Amino acid sequence: MKDEQAPQTPQNSERVTVLGGGSFGLAMASILGKKKYPVKILVRTQDAMDSINIHHRSSTYLKDVTLPDSVTATCDKEEALKDATLIIHAVPVQYSRKFLKEMAPYVPKDCPVICTSKGIETGTLCLMQDILREELGDSRDYAFLSGPSFAREIAVGLATAVVVASQSDTLTNRAAEIFGCENFRVFTSKDVIGVEIGGAVKNVIAIAAGMCEGLGLGTNAVAGLVTRGCLEMQTLARAVGASPSTLMGLSGVGDTFGTCFGPLSRNRNLGIRLGQGEKLEDILSSSTEVAEGYATALSLVEFLLTKMPRSFRMDLKFPILFGVAEVLKGERSPREGMKDLMLMPIR
Amino acid sequence: MKDEQAPQTPQNSERVTVLGGGSFGLAMASILGKKKYPVKILVRTQDAMDSINIHHRSSTYLKDVTLPDSVTATCDKEEALKDATLIIHAVPVQYSRKFLKEMAPYVPKDCPVICTSKGIETGTLCLMQDILREELGDSRDYAFLSGPSFAREIAVGLATAVVVASQSDTLTNRAAEIFGCENFRVFTSKDVIGVEIGGAVKNVIAIAAGMCEGLGLGTNAVAGLVTRGCLEMQTLARAVGASPSTLMGLSGVGDTFGTCFGPLSRNRNLGIRLGQGEKLEDILSSSTEVAEGYATALSLVEFLLTKMPRSFRMDLKFPILFGVAEVLKGERSPREGMKDLMLMPIR
Repeated sequence: MKDEQAPQTPQNSERVTVLGGGSFGLAMASILGKKKYPVKILVRTQDAMDSINIHHRSSTYLKDVTLPDSVTATCDKEEALKDATLIIHAVPVQYSRKFLKEMAPYVPKDCPVICTSKGIETGTLCLMQDILREELGDSRDYAFLSGPSFAREIAVGLATAVVVASQSDTLTNRAAEIFGCENFRVFTSKDVIGVEIGGAVKNVIAIAAGMCEGLGLGTNAVAGLVTRGCLEMQTLARAVGASPSTLMGLSGVGDTFGTCFGPLSRNRNLGIRLGQGEKLEDILSSSTEVAEGYATALSLVEFLLTKMPRSFRMDLKFPILFGVAEVLKGERSPREGMKDLMLMPIR
Repeated sequence: MKDEQAPQTPQNSERVTVLGGGSFGLAMASILGKKKYPVKILVRTQDAMDSINIHHRSSTYLKDVTLPDSVTATCDKEEALKDATLIIHAVPVQYSRKFLKEMAPYVPKDCPVICTSKGIETGTLCLMQDILREELGDSRDYAFLSGPSFAREIAVGLATAVVVASQSDTLTNRAAEIFGCENFRVFTSKDVIGVEIGGAVKNVIAIAAGMCEGLGLGTNAVAGLVTRGCLEMQTLARAVGASPSTLMGLSGVGDTFGTCFGPLSRNRNLGIRLGQGEKLEDILSSSTEVAEGYATALSLVEFLLTKMPRSFRMDLKFPILFGVAEVLKGERSPREGMKDLMLMPIR
């Protein structure tokens, strides 16, 4: 289903800067470029910049996708940010703090940020909302975009629906206006923590689902496991103040559907390879793209142990989240871990 | 993960009759036979009976699965039912009423029934709980088994988790005791209507998901559609008195996961073939197994229009359920139907 609406020249003077030239940054640039917004992508290298500016495509990610003419790239921070009216943050969580520290001096005062990264920072156990506020200050508005949204599908114009959550209605409405088109549907929410928790936890569930699949346990087992994973996601989200309905929506079960069953998920593929018996080090070193779920799985367990009320045994309340972490830490094999999960009561 | 527990001879004198020799009936017989319960399957033909009694396998369904020795077949109603202490109903919804009418004189007084069929009866718009009570009376206990449970996977011993719901705790506990083993986990619920609604609606969502896939719309679109489908499932279930948590569990999103994304779903495959441009008549006539979602999709729309409070426009509240029915009735093409769904606001 290609976009059949002729792109209109935007009536406003929005100038968008995308931080990060990975797959998702390119997908966001592609959507906005098709709507004729001027978009600058901040990339890391001269090569990456030249490829986009000369050939209108990335030399590393989604290499076969041609970017619209209004999309340009730079590797100069000041150049990237000086005129920005809206920033899209598309740098993986684990690299975000260092990256944002370097950006901070160049980010225009009050310029809002829409964050597309999902996960929990190793060590600090921060979500992206914490990292962004700590590095870019409290005075600007932040929004969080999530939902079942593989970058490749967005970039080639396949229909996608996402949620943008922010405490600022002004920013969610602005995001819906700027991004929204026939093939990219934007729904709005005020439940930032619910959207962030869903985005972090679904990658861990996807690793578990992949392990089940790699072990050849079948669709019944994978579906049962993912169901239990969604219950853990909802339990955690409620405990930190999220609305249960957020987790039933695009950024909860929706994103989990796509990540656990879609062929493009890096986290699911990490799980499949583990289930098939590959060593974690070999898998991690063989991929150019980051499986965010790996770091987040380890952080989530710390998060549960240190930040949640100690009224119950965390490992019994969150068997999948703990089980995945144990496998990733090498404390048990995928087969042992998955078998224990199958034998554990749900309620 | 094969069952590693040596089957024990049951301590009680349970004698189980399975009504229906299709895939799911065989899977139930297989589970119970492995636990050494005496199981009789009522089949329709002498050939079907001979195949099971002589070769320990069905001549039509799951043909490569060997049934345990304690499983026998008969095509004599009286013989099948006279000693039964527990009945498992595994006849498709649309054939159930006529079938049960013929059985009624032979069903032992007070013998409980566990129903595995899911859907809504054409014409009467009855769920299985209504059909069973109308045909076999109100005095016995009924339970409803549901969850992500492809028959083939159960029959070959792959791990599966299901819910059994009944107003009778005695029957759910008995079902959990009889069925439960390492690779077939049984959870209990009292929410019969929630389990039945989930089981009916998920097949319609699976047809929609299949159409999306057959049209090549991508994982983002399928995941977005399935998410919306689960919201419709939950809205409908709440309206008829179900607990929202049931729909978050195995018999709701769990079964939906398996049916929309698993390779074995007849309903998903019906959708895929429709999406790829095949004619409905050709698809229905080419399959030996019933895609229950087809009849249920048409009945569900009638159910919504006639049995729900008229406080809102049903087609706006349930766009997927109405959209699938319109495609199945030939009122619009799969592409038009799916496109409309993509363009419709979620909230």
